[in-house]
Amino acid sequence: MSGLPVIDVSGRAPRLRAAWSALDAPIDALVVGDLTNIRWLTGFTGSAATAVVLGDEVVVITDGRYGDQAERQLAMASCRGRVRVGLTQAEQVSLLADTVRDAGPVGFESAHTSHARWLQLEDALARDLVPTVGLIEAGRRVKDHAELARIERACAIADEALARVAPTLAPGRTEAQVRDDLELAMRDLGADGPSYETIVATGPVNAPMPHHRPTRTVLELGHTVIIDVGALVDGYHSDMTRTYVIGEPTPLQQEVYDAVLAAQAAGVAAVRPGISSRDLDAVCRDLLADAGFGPWFVHGTGHGVGLLIHEDPFVNSSGGWVLQAGDVVTVEPGVYRGDFGGVRVEDLVEVTSTGGRALTTTPKDSPCPPSPPTI
Amino acid sequence: MSGLPVIDVSGRAPRLRAAWSALDAPIDALVVGDLTNIRWLTGFTGSAATAVVLGDEVVVITDGRYGDQAERQLAMASCRGRVRVGLTQAEQVSLLADTVRDAGPVGFESAHTSHARWLQLEDALARDLVPTVGLIEAGRRVKDHAELARIERACAIADEALARVAPTLAPGRTEAQVRDDLELAMRDLGADGPSYETIVATGPVNAPMPHHRPTRTVLELGHTVIIDVGALVDGYHSDMTRTYVIGEPTPLQQEVYDAVLAAQAAGVAAVRPGISSRDLDAVCRDLLADAGFGPWFVHGTGHGVGLLIHEDPFVNSSGGWVLQAGDVVTVEPGVYRGDFGGVRVEDLVEVTSTGGRALTTTPKDSPCPPSPPTI
Repeated sequence: MSGLPVIDVSGRAPRLRAAWSALDAPIDALVVGDLTNIRWLTGFTGSAATAVVLGDEVVVITDGRYGDQAERQLAMASCRGRVRVGLTQAEQVSLLADTVRDAGPVGFESAHTSHARWLQLEDALARDLVPTVGLIEAGRRVKDHAELARIERACAIADEALARVAPTLAPGRTEAQVRDDLELAMRDLGADGPSYETIVATGPVNAPMPHHRPTRTVLELGHTVIIDVGALVDGYHSDMTRTYVIGEPTPLQQEVYDAVLAAQAAGVAAVRPGISSRDLDAVCRDLLADAGFGPWFVHGTGHGVGLLIHEDPFVNSSGGWVLQAGDVVTVEPGVYRGDFGGVRVEDLVEVTSTGGRALTTTPKDSPCPPSPPTI
Repeated sequence: MSGLPVIDVSGRAPRLRAAWSALDAPIDALVVGDLTNIRWLTGFTGSAATAVVLGDEVVVITDGRYGDQAERQLAMASCRGRVRVGLTQAEQVSLLADTVRDAGPVGFESAHTSHARWLQLEDALARDLVPTVGLIEAGRRVKDHAELARIERACAIADEALARVAPTLAPGRTEAQVRDDLELAMRDLGADGPSYETIVATGPVNAPMPHHRPTRTVLELGHTVIIDVGALVDGYHSDMTRTYVIGEPTPLQQEVYDAVLAAQAAGVAAVRPGISSRDLDAVCRDLLADAGFGPWFVHGTGHGVGLLIHEDPFVNSSGGWVLQAGDVVTVEPGVYRGDFGGVRVEDLVEVTSTGGRALTTTPKDSPCPPSPPTI
């Protein structure tokens, strides 16, 4: 991706080892099955692998499709490690057993390893494995400058794509057409693709579904339309939502919009290192409840974004997370009612050392789509 | 999706119950966490849910984003079941415990439930759960007429998209441009999107990587280009690969192409109910080995396709599957060498009651791209 700093993973495995040394039951090696975690640790982007983090190197075990690619990607990312190829599942498990043979206690990712795979591994490795949770995810939360550069680029691309497409929102266009225009614009602007399935949701049936998938439903005068759009840049995601009203907003539409926007802006302003995800969620939730819309805010306030579109930390009423500098999180309250439609406003925010910095910048002060540029 | 028969899931849970009654340790209920399996059982397409199959209904437990959508989708698919909404993870687990309170032995999906989730469920449900593997996947293998209609539509769309784009393959175009043209054509033809990340891989560096991701690499005279493209239609996937040479093929390119094509055609011809996946794999593998290209066929011969792009049965040298009528599988041998490039030819094949029926029909007799239509 032109102009982006190279991702350098060389410091990540050492920090992971420092983290596991601090465990109550320290381990000597970690079997990593989650592909996103493998990518973060090694640079490898293929669809099938197991990695083993040893005391002095990372071993990536993959199949015949990915041997060359893995070699190249580990070198590119300055990963201290090596690649071993097993053509069959059985060969790969046997390579895994060989790799950890001399290690002391071996951990595995409890939240990313299926019960069946766990049974298989304990059998093949002829030892009890130590369950670990979130060791790598904790490291992934703190984005380095090369990661932030990708997220910022992804945000800028989505901003520009929406700036191109928002003026075209008008009666007669379909949700799917708007989605196609947004995704094509993002590709045109250099994205690898959309960050997730772009949401364009309009009218009393579709807009109330927070995760509606675009259809041939037509935009109509008087309807709300929720656009939730992000770009993917070299594995990193962006995430943003804006809501528009086609035509003149009714008093109720304006009231809901203002309430959601006020809650969202207060949420963005409350982002800082040290705030708990529960408290941040409450900032938005309490304001919407005070405005009388509490029952229709049916999801959490936000989530982390990085190599995954939804990742730690999650910002909701049950979350025990505390934000820290380097987190990148969404703030996205919404109100949905079957007889009305839906309104959601969302920005992606970097947690800085002193507060928060919104990475998405599309105007949000009004629910009216921008006018087409005059020629 | 216009003209497609409605998906009717009403017979699926009863067949699942018949399958679990035949287990050595029969169960009374099954906790289903895999979203693809939930979709197949209930019609629900959201991104977060747990389903419980009881003796007489299916209960879908989801969060506030998806309550209305789940109700609607279960009704549309004639699912005998109901939806329960829990706003937080804790509420959802408590609904789950309540749902299975009166059931006898409760099974769970060992291959789709993380070790951590398994611990959480056994704790919350205060009982031992019975691990099961592949109960729903076994049912999913046999595609009904409504599923086949979607796969056939997806295949036809990919065929037509490639027919439009293949004549444009020429020096100077980039992999990414060809990918964009293919994906836009598929959308234009009614696809919900690509079935997977479209692969366009050319030249001595990219083409040898079976799962290469398109870049700005330029097509050059004398290079091979692998195009692996499928469409997504209402959740169902297609999968096809063709390989072209830009310009006149060299004798070696023609030799490799002919060997791969002969192996692939023999594989397609060998598809029938009752053949083992190992034997089917051997048909292609032995022919390529006889031709001297054995070491460069680095992956399995194929895989099932349906609601997932890769699903049971897998066709490779270690597979213990036996094909049955209703399976839809790829046949896709390939040869890859770093100094040469790559050649892969792939069709999607329905296993019929007597043999196989290729669902993808793009011509493959020659590695030369079709000429642009004369005006």
